[in-house]
Parts: sequence; structure tokens; C-alpha cells
Amino acid sequence: MNAEGLLESQRIRREIRDGRITGTSRGLALGFVQCNLAIMPKAYAFDFMLYCQRNQRACPVLEVTDPGSPVPHKLAPNADLRTDCARYAVFVEGKQQADQTDIKDLWRDDFVSFLIGSGITFDGALERAGVPTDRHRWVLRTDRPTEPAGPFQGDLIVTMRWLTPQQAITAVQVSSRFPFNHGAPIHIGDPAAIGADLDNPLFGGPVPAMPDGLAAVFWACGVTPQAAAENAKLPIFIAHAPAHSFITDLPADEMMTA
Amino acid sequence: MNAEGLLESQRIRREIRDGRITGTSRGLALGFVQCNLAIMPKAYAFDFMLYCQRNQRACPVLEVTDPGSPVPHKLAPNADLRTDCARYAVFVEGKQQADQTDIKDLWRDDFVSFLIGSGITFDGALERAGVPTDRHRWVLRTDRPTEPAGPFQGDLIVTMRWLTPQQAITAVQVSSRFPFNHGAPIHIGDPAAIGADLDNPLFGGPVPAMPDGLAAVFWACGVTPQAAAENAKLPIFIAHAPAHSFITDLPADEMMTA
Repeated sequence: MNAEGLLESQRIRREIRDGRITGTSRGLALGFVQCNLAIMPKAYAFDFMLYCQRNQRACPVLEVTDPGSPVPHKLAPNADLRTDCARYAVFVEGKQQADQTDIKDLWRDDFVSFLIGSGITFDGALERAGVPTDRHRWVLRTDRPTEPAGPFQGDLIVTMRWLTPQQAITAVQVSSRFPFNHGAPIHIGDPAAIGADLDNPLFGGPVPAMPDGLAAVFWACGVTPQAAAENAKLPIFIAHAPAHSFITDLPADEMMTA
Repeated sequence: MNAEGLLESQRIRREIRDGRITGTSRGLALGFVQCNLAIMPKAYAFDFMLYCQRNQRACPVLEVTDPGSPVPHKLAPNADLRTDCARYAVFVEGKQQADQTDIKDLWRDDFVSFLIGSGITFDGALERAGVPTDRHRWVLRTDRPTEPAGPFQGDLIVTMRWLTPQQAITAVQVSSRFPFNHGAPIHIGDPAAIGADLDNPLFGGPVPAMPDGLAAVFWACGVTPQAAAENAKLPIFIAHAPAHSFITDLPADEMMTA
């Protein structure tokens, strides 16, 4: 807590809400869980929740708000989901609109918000175990279909990290302790075995050649449900903009089991 | 597999469907996951799923069927949920009706079925680790409220086991490896600390005095969501009858992580 009695997560969210922080959430409020956001009309919420249940490794739902409520009571009880992301991505009938810095003008009484776990949650635990997380990391499409539900469907999206063999073993151990946050890797080794698209990462340029002595390790990624929601071409769908996640008050280490 | 190429789970379900097995599912198809069933009209399914998400330890949803489909494609693709439990409990407006041995006459095109993990799934793993599971086990109400969703609410129901201190430690370790099936205990020690009602277990007579040298260990129980659905007084709600669970084709050990 700071001098005002605020958690660092609360302080950062206030800075975002007041427009003093406008950039990425990466590196902010370290140690607190950051979430992917998916906001949609209630009419689609059951099918989306079903999609997340059927693809649980990729889509760990940490909280679902009551229709019309912008407050995630469990993860950040004094937050407002309409204002507390620095940047929102907005899709109308599946077409991306201009990003917004708040969504007060778009908010509806039937909006349901899903807070979905992000792989960066266990970055701190990996670092403490000697696994670097600040490099050799990409978000990639694969050709492995997810299990559909209603209009929601699409291929699995993964996070790939390059690690030494010893780091890879440690990373399996550490991430297994976060079963509600993607958990253990879904694959180790040849990217082609899961059809990972190395030429077109979701962020940044093509993946370079992997140095000798490293192994590619793949985790199901929380971008998967967001992509499925874009594919569904809902009348309106709102997400956090990439790298501008919602910061919760939940310490990442509280997600750890076993 | 047997001589006909059937899994033991498939063979048992056929015996149940044909009316040759009419009793409890306890001890049948050992090693296969057994599920609690909750079947309700789609109009209530979103709130029920929300309830399960908000009380995940007690309500591990393993599969949700498409509306109108009696087939759990993931857990038992050749099963029929209308006939493959030996005994069903039926509630109309919250009032329990006579049990039925199938629900073909009640089935509706808008029924959604939830298959919910049961604590007996890790009994096999506990036994192999030296923790007996055939005695000193009760299902108890507590006074700890669950987090409500729509009409679904109620107090947490727990499974209490009496174990030696060494068994208790082992049981924490083993059950932690089943995070999607209640996971680690929620409490060890004084039943009064969680308001556990020792006088009125859900099945059987009052709990006797605990022998010296044992510890009471408590897990969130999959009866919790069923009780919440009864409390909601839906126009119609169908569950498996107690101890007559739905037997899936999923090996229990496949639920294990880490």
C-alpha cells in the first residue's frame, strides 16, 4: 500500500482513469493479475461462456460481471470497466473501429464483461525460478481448431517461448501450478506439429531462426477467446487493446496451487 | 476394453440403459470419472453457469451440452443423458417429485445439461497413496454462503473425511493435483469454524464423535450447485439421484495435473 492506503493496482487504475497513464499495462503494478477483457451483450454471453468452458486451457474465465454492471466485484471491487483500461478495441459486426480510451458512450445495460486470465500472470513466478520472460516470446496462430459454441469458433492461439532445456523443465513445473491461468504447456518442440504460424505473429515481425540449444515451448493463450469473439461478428464486442490489459487487485501468487 | 470392444464405462451405461443395473453407481466402472448432473431449461443456464464459475471449487463444470442434445460429446460420446443414469431426481418449482429411472417423457428441446465433477474422482488416487476412502466420509451443510448468480444461491456443502495427520498431508498433496475436481481441501480442523452441521449429514445418520488422533479435512462438494438449483425453484430441474451419478468415459487419472 502507498501513503494513501491504495494498492499499487488501485493507484495505477486511477492514473489510467484520469488519463495520466495512456500506454501499455506491461510492467505496471507488477505482481497483480492482469486480465484480457471481453465485453458483449447478454444475448451472446451464454454461448461465449460455453466456448470458454469448452476451451478452458485457452480461456480461463476469472470473473463474469452481472449484466449492466461495470464493476468486477471479486477481482477489483472499486474499479470501473468502462474507464480503467487505457485503451479499448471496439468491433461492430466483426469490423474493428477506432480504439477508444474509455467506453462510457458505448456502455449498455445488457453488457456482460468477462475477465480472462493472461499468460503474463505467471511471469513473476517464472522469473523467480530463473526463467527469463522479457525476450524470445511470441503470440502465434496455429491450425488447431478450438471447440466451437454458438457463433464462437476459431483456431487456437498460443504463446511461444524459446527456453533452454533446463528452463523448459522448470517452466513446465512452475506453470503447472497455475491451472486456472493456462497451466502447463500444450506442446514442446516442432512449431509445425501444431501449425504455428511463425511468419505472422500477432504482434511484431516474423519469428527469426531459433538459436541452437533452445527449445520452443507453447502455452494456450488468452487471445484465443477474443479472436473467437471477433470471428462471431457480434453487433458489438469490446476488448482491451493489445498490451493494454485490465489490472486487477488479485496478487498473481494467489492464483498458484499445489 | 471387454470382448465386445466396449470400455467398462460404456458397458455399465448400457446395463443401466437396459434396466439391468438399477442401484448406486458407487464402485462401478472404477477409474472412470463420475459426474453430478444438473439439467434445466436454457433460460436458466447462463445464470447457473455463472454460479458455477463464481464458486469454482465447489462446482467444477466438466461439460455443458448444446440445448436439446442429450449427448455429452466430450465425456461420453455414445451416451444418452435421458436414460444412462440409473435414477433421476426431479424438481418442479423446487418441489421434489418421485424419482424416475429415465427422463424420456420429461425431455425438452431447450434442456441444457451440466456435467459437474464429483469428489469421488480422486478416490482412486488417494487409495493408491495410502489414504483410505471407504469410511469416515460425510457430506455436510455449512453456514458459509456461496456467491449467488441470478436465482442460484445457498450455503457451501462440503465433504468431510477423518484422516490421520500423515494421511491428511498426503490428501492435500494428492487432491491438489485435481484442480478441476474440487482440488485441495478448503479447511482442516474444527468443523464449527465453517459451521459444518454434524447432526444432519445429507446422507446417513448424525456424525459420531471423532476418535482421538484423527483430523477432520473438508473439501468443497459437487452437491453445492445441485442444492443451489433446488433453491432456485425452477419450473423444472433434473439431477442424478444421490449416489446414482453419471459415469463418463474419461479416466480419472486424466484429470490430474502437475
